[in-house]
Amino acid sequence: MQTVDLLLAPRWLVPIEPEGVVLEDHALLADGGRIVAVLPLGEARARYAPRQTIELPQHALLPGFVNLHTHAAMSLLRGIADDLPLMDWLQNHIWPAEGAHVSSGFCEDGLRLAFAEMIRGGTTCVNDMYFFPDATARVAREAGLRASVGLIVFDFPTAWGSGADDYIHKGLALHDQLRSEPLIRTVFAPHAPYTVSDAPLLKVRQYANELGIGIHMHVHETAHEIETAIASTGKRPWARLRDLELLGPDFIAVHMTQLTDEEIDDAARHGVHIAHCPESNLKLASGFCPVDKLLRAGVNVGIGSDGAASNNDLDLLGEMRSAALLAKAVGGNPAALAAPAALKMATLAGARALGLDSEIGSLLAGKSADCIAIDLSASATQPVYNVLSQIVYAAGRDQVSDVFVAGRALLRNRQLTTIDEAAAIARAAEWQRKIRP
Amino acid sequence: MQTVDLLLAPRWLVPIEPEGVVLEDHALLADGGRIVAVLPLGEARARYAPRQTIELPQHALLPGFVNLHTHAAMSLLRGIADDLPLMDWLQNHIWPAEGAHVSSGFCEDGLRLAFAEMIRGGTTCVNDMYFFPDATARVAREAGLRASVGLIVFDFPTAWGSGADDYIHKGLALHDQLRSEPLIRTVFAPHAPYTVSDAPLLKVRQYANELGIGIHMHVHETAHEIETAIASTGKRPWARLRDLELLGPDFIAVHMTQLTDEEIDDAARHGVHIAHCPESNLKLASGFCPVDKLLRAGVNVGIGSDGAASNNDLDLLGEMRSAALLAKAVGGNPAALAAPAALKMATLAGARALGLDSEIGSLLAGKSADCIAIDLSASATQPVYNVLSQIVYAAGRDQVSDVFVAGRALLRNRQLTTIDEAAAIARAAEWQRKIRP
Repeated sequence: MQTVDLLLAPRWLVPIEPEGVVLEDHALLADGGRIVAVLPLGEARARYAPRQTIELPQHALLPGFVNLHTHAAMSLLRGIADDLPLMDWLQNHIWPAEGAHVSSGFCEDGLRLAFAEMIRGGTTCVNDMYFFPDATARVAREAGLRASVGLIVFDFPTAWGSGADDYIHKGLALHDQLRSEPLIRTVFAPHAPYTVSDAPLLKVRQYANELGIGIHMHVHETAHEIETAIASTGKRPWARLRDLELLGPDFIAVHMTQLTDEEIDDAARHGVHIAHCPESNLKLASGFCPVDKLLRAGVNVGIGSDGAASNNDLDLLGEMRSAALLAKAVGGNPAALAAPAALKMATLAGARALGLDSEIGSLLAGKSADCIAIDLSASATQPVYNVLSQIVYAAGRDQVSDVFVAGRALLRNRQLTTIDEAAAIARAAEWQRKIRP
Repeated sequence: MQTVDLLLAPRWLVPIEPEGVVLEDHALLADGGRIVAVLPLGEARARYAPRQTIELPQHALLPGFVNLHTHAAMSLLRGIADDLPLMDWLQNHIWPAEGAHVSSGFCEDGLRLAFAEMIRGGTTCVNDMYFFPDATARVAREAGLRASVGLIVFDFPTAWGSGADDYIHKGLALHDQLRSEPLIRTVFAPHAPYTVSDAPLLKVRQYANELGIGIHMHVHETAHEIETAIASTGKRPWARLRDLELLGPDFIAVHMTQLTDEEIDDAARHGVHIAHCPESNLKLASGFCPVDKLLRAGVNVGIGSDGAASNNDLDLLGEMRSAALLAKAVGGNPAALAAPAALKMATLAGARALGLDSEIGSLLAGKSADCIAIDLSASATQPVYNVLSQIVYAAGRDQVSDVFVAGRALLRNRQLTTIDEAAAIARAAEWQRKIRP
């Protein structure tokens, strides 16, 4: 008998690899934060002596969701301005509020609120882009969440930096500080083609190559972005990024709602990853990301919630459902992004985009024990003919009962273990009174 | 001091009329199942002596949702076949399963499961279309839910009828039986232009006029429907229904994803109501209902969940969010179907389509006390700058805490009071074993 830390005994186990498989009455064994084995429950009980056993008799166990694009601290601005076009929303509402209020403290409080919501909804890994990425790293470590921390870059000054060189300098310093963090990585995050000019983008590419870290950027979010770029540079933003040699298998392009067939082929050729944010794109009427075409071209597509100020939640389960539904309508194909492919998109594809697919994204022996349990016993998810359909098309975020990152429980029986949620909500209310007295 | 049955004291009260209004620290008073008054809490406590007071300190109180199109008993087929085109799904999966299994008992069990889910999600009125409408009426009465029971008509035989005349005959008999039910109405429900021929449609129109009841029908769900109709009749289905004089202010057209500008004007001119089912249309890749155009033309549009076999849930809150998000993208206008309009669509517009807008759909004195409380204290709906945004864009169905129909609590503190949910789920599991052994 081999002693291990943890035995999880779910009714159904969805390993993601191989795609579409559902194992019944299997167990997952974890030790030292890693998956030791996935095997039939009887065999598991015969061969292993777990220090802790968690029975999940009505639950599906699957890898945690990877939120491939968000601005977590913006949870404090949730609902401050809705039903507006992107540029009006940004220039007249969000940027003024951020200019007046964003600080290290604002970010820490917003991050705690956002991470409480994300963990409750089954997210175990977040790729964030916002000011004060040092705060993101601190609060992620405190919450036990796996994070890819965006080293944000703008041309113009904000509370976090005075200009492009200052952002890059601070980003490099933070990257150095975080080297020994087991759950935290960094990624360059130049905001968008329309907010970062060529010289800093070239520096970002150079440092990304030297340090071996990725680049995460909003690209082709709206038709307006393309039109203004053509007017000022004579090029579509995608062509400009290609000419600057930014595109590559370490590049995550967020949104990508405006794409020619040539650009889709080009994305595949460069191995670029896409962070698809369906609800944000719908809400801001930005356009439709051609997910079915991208997948058929071989492009890796993950899912992001975007920030809570534009979406207005951080619910990867809901976002995955929206992605699965929308891909069918946009592709004119009801078989597009079927449930197994949608689940893979929300887990393994996101991991792959972050260069973490050997570590997370599926329940295979040797990977980190980042997994979640979804309780399917609610009337809304009964009967269960098809576990994958049920998770993608019917389950709600409240049905996520347990969340583990590297074998550590961040949610047990729907109770957060690492975040003081009441305190986070109280702090959010204080910010609300300050921002909108 | 006037004695009344009930005082509800929510943090926020959303009356729906006038549109966009949020009242703070107001109370709703109900007596004999009707709303007596909505007024400031202090004044309410001074003037009324309630037999029961329910404090809802973190909640928004609003009218219950009207699910304007569903096939409730199909909850038993949830997830049986997904990611397929409409006709393949219907002809090769759903119709064979229904042919083999649908009975009065199947419907009763499916309805109990569906109504449990609907009540939990804040639906207080359902417009149903399915076999055995007598079962729909029985289970709705048992559950205390307000229902518009569809008197279904097909050309071909099913377990409920032998042919068009038999369906109509059984429908008329059921209509007679239900005359004295306070919460239950009937509506003719000829299935679709492609399943009901001219002669029975003319009879339906004649009886609808004589009895003063409405007509509820799938119309222009897919491009395929239009193409085959043109091939066989030389007309688009809409033109055929217009020529048969079916269209009018008592007609609810479901789906309507394929519409010319002339048809939109025509819908407005005839006063036809539309049951928009955004998630079903997306999932089956049926097309996009032009909601923004329809509203600007003055057409009344409500929201339906469709059946759980196509959607795969019966969640009006989620469906309202999908409608609000999708209308912006389809209309190319981020201001389309803003939160106040979306809330009205899910409540008062549905009531109006059913001819029930003097009875339900808004919280006005004199109307029936059909209302729900949504608890906004979760981290996913904090902070609260804007109650309406929060409900439409961030709240989940699990945040519905209390549901009342005609002053009677069907859900209290998230506990169902009229349906034995465990029994309903156990029966669903039995059907599952029978249908997919």
